[in-house]
Amino acid sequence: MIEPFDDQYFMKLALEEAKRAFEEDEIPVGAVIVAKKQVIARAHNLTERLTDVTAHAEMQAITSAADYLGGKYLRGCTLYVTIEPCVMCAGALYWSQLDKIVFGATDEKRGAGKVGSLYHPKTAITSGVLESEARELMQSFFAKKRK
Amino acid sequence: MIEPFDDQYFMKLALEEAKRAFEEDEIPVGAVIVAKKQVIARAHNLTERLTDVTAHAEMQAITSAADYLGGKYLRGCTLYVTIEPCVMCAGALYWSQLDKIVFGATDEKRGAGKVGSLYHPKTAITSGVLESEARELMQSFFAKKRK
Repeated sequence: MIEPFDDQYFMKLALEEAKRAFEEDEIPVGAVIVAKKQVIARAHNLTERLTDVTAHAEMQAITSAADYLGGKYLRGCTLYVTIEPCVMCAGALYWSQLDKIVFGATDEKRGAGKVGSLYHPKTAITSGVLESEARELMQSFFAKKRK
Repeated sequence: MIEPFDDQYFMKLALEEAKRAFEEDEIPVGAVIVAKKQVIARAHNLTERLTDVTAHAEMQAITSAADYLGGKYLRGCTLYVTIEPCVMCAGALYWSQLDKIVFGATDEKRGAGKVGSLYHPKTAITSGVLESEARELMQSFFAKKRK
């Protein structure tokens, strides 16, 4: 059976968000949160525009999804994010108690995975979905910055 | 020499913030950020009012201080917080690159210290300042909740 709303489908939407960040000269990370196959939040990194280190894509998506649902816990939801969450975002995702987190490329330097298991024990983690697209976007961003 | 603006002085202000949270039926954690002996941000936990797991006192104080300074890094600043930061807040404090973090009581269950060293290597950490006041406020909050 073909499943049109699979992990790749939603990760593509997260990549669209990351491309928006890229165009705005922000480190290109995008995220969407999905409940019952519906996108309830989408966000991209805005640390430069908001002059705020906490304005990562995931943080904004969490706040936005909780606002949409009217409750602070995101049980039943899945977060798609193009790059592996950092420690701050993993800590926020812990508090949110999502069902599932799907990320694209790992972040060798600042990814939460380097520190240990920071996610909620009830949250399932999937990685590597559209990994190369997410990684290439980051690489071309930093190559542009170095010029 | 008497130093009127010492760690205890600023922690008292953080405790005042924590008491405000208590009165608003929020988990009583308060924070202030200080630059050149001046308070540039004060905040208390608002997770219930904002229906947002990311609305911890430290997160709001970081956003507020960066807004005041007009830059996203908080070098030269000290954060005072009544309870040990959680993983999310420690991760945010890492990105902020503060000079110093002073906290009151350790959080045995959710404190970042349980996980390892999550703070920025250039950030100095002091703990135990007005520890019993911070802890008692938490204990009376949870005792009230259990009633």
